[in-house]
Amino acid sequence: MLVYQAVALLEERVPHGKTPYGERFRVPIIGGSFEGPDLRGHILPGGADWQLLRADGYLELIADYYMETDDKVLIKVNNRGLVQTVPGSDGNRYAMTTPHFEAPIGKYGWLNQLIFAGTVVPGDSKVPAVHLAIFKLV
Amino acid sequence: MLVYQAVALLEERVPHGKTPYGERFRVPIIGGSFEGPDLRGHILPGGADWQLLRADGYLELIADYYMETDDKVLIKVNNRGLVQTVPGSDGNRYAMTTPHFEAPIGKYGWLNQLIFAGTVVPGDSKVPAVHLAIFKLV
Amino acid sequence: MLVYQAVALLEERVPHGKTPYGERFRVPIIGGSFEGPDLRGHILPGGADWQLLRADGYLELIADYYMETDDKVLIKVNNRGLVQTVPGSDGNRYAMTTPHFEAPIGKYGWLNQLIFAGTVVPGDSKVPAVHLAIFKLV
Amino acid sequence: MLVYQAVALLEERVPHGKTPYGERFRVPIIGGSFEGPDLRGHILPGGADWQLLRADGYLELIADYYMETDDKVLIKVNNRGLVQTVPGSDGNRYAMTTPHFEAPIGKYGWLNQLIFAGTVVPGDSKVPAVHLAIFKLV
Repeated sequence: MLVYQAVALLEERVPHGKTPYGERFRVPIIGGSFEGPDLRGHILPGGADWQLLRADGYLELIADYYMETDDKVLIKVNNRGLVQTVPGSDGNRYAMTTPHFEAPIGKYGWLNQLIFAGTVVPGDSKVPAVHLAIFKLV
Repeated sequence: MLVYQAVALLEERVPHGKTPYGERFRVPIIGGSFEGPDLRGHILPGGADWQLLRADGYLELIADYYMETDDKVLIKVNNRGLVQTVPGSDGNRYAMTTPHFEAPIGKYGWLNQLIFAGTVVPGDSKVPAVHLAIFKLV
Repeated sequence: MLVYQAVALLEERVPHGKTPYGERFRVPIIGGSFEGPDLRGHILPGGADWQLLRADGYLELIADYYMETDDKVLIKVNNRGLVQTVPGSDGNRYAMTTPHFEAPIGKYGWLNQLIFAGTVVPGDSKVPAVHLAIFKLV
Repeated sequence: MLVYQAVALLEERVPHGKTPYGERFRVPIIGGSFEGPDLRGHILPGGADWQLLRADGYLELIADYYMETDDKVLIKVNNRGLVQTVPGSDGNRYAMTTPHFEAPIGKYGWLNQLIFAGTVVPGDSKVPAVHLAIFKLV
């Protein structure tokens, strides 16, 4: 069941080189918005997606950032995922993720109390961006 | 799509008292077995589920343990979840979880390359145990 | 042995309210500089210190941010710590921390290969800032 | 300042093969004891040291286990470290670590409120074991 769709605005991906864990990249998260049946608002600047190109060729994502609802509640997001390639396509890619939220107890406290999954696909606009769809698992 | 079903054998839950993060409990994992279309084997003794009773009344699970397939491949499991109560029931409880696996590159390497969700329900036997069902999200 | 001293420039602390883990605060990290015998450079904007006021009254810090050396090497910092009060003082506070670095293999690869500790003290300037001193443990 | 010295009893190291993060090993922790000026007791069976041989040739340790004091208080230990080689020696090795403790609020609550470092050296006995010395940083 859909919780929200979002667009995250990014800066260009920055290579950090080969570290002891694999090749690393950083993608600054500089804004965006999210909207769903029970919550909507914007993504705060100041987060990042810290990516690892692993020894098995998969790109692992760990995105840490913050969102603010339209009624001024702040929510932390930790979204861990893996980039997949669409079979039979011309290398089209998307990511499956398992976001964890930390919200204050109260109106949005249910974000702390469910398990979620999501997809991330590249945007098609001129500026770097990704489109997210977040679902609750029931 | 089902990846495997498992029974994890446990010791009785041990209260660790109130720590700075909330009330803590430890459940030793002492064995068990798992079986699915593409993998089967047993759960090694020596893991634990480190539980947190949070300020919002939810019980959070972080289970770390190891499995061995019937062809002797070792797999690490980190399974994080939250205990839920079945609405309208007499307090029946289950947990939704998001397991992460670390397997060697090779036959079971696909466990590193997908996103999973699972359920955990109490066993009905005389000995402490839980039943797990693990699914891949596609 | 001193590795570097740093000044981190901050935005004002933002309360996130009471979450299931305790009371949370976020301190955006927007710049700064570091200098030591073997490395110097600046702190990138776009990090944050995600703080938890725990049930035992201690404030726990988890700062994630990025630094760039003067020769353009990028380093990730994860700095976990606890705020302490100076005994006998008028409530003067500092933090002890254990920073972990992830640097590319090469000139600064030794940051991946040692264990570090540090102190964080509030700055005395008009703008929000902290002063850090990072040491290697040998 | 010394907090405690400990002997951890181990099983033989088990290779888990090459995973997407590097080569992995598991060392089951099956017992042991610790003693210091302000606490003493034993190490519970059921923990493990989950080791990673990284791309830079360093062995990284993440040991999770539980201790019980002689007055029956349970303490969780997460001890992260790196194996070092003694320069000029015939390959003698030790590890530097930064342990984090989670203890119940009360008599041993100070373990939650300080920052610690430690050393781990191999035992010289016939059975697999390591000797730890844990210090508080002040």
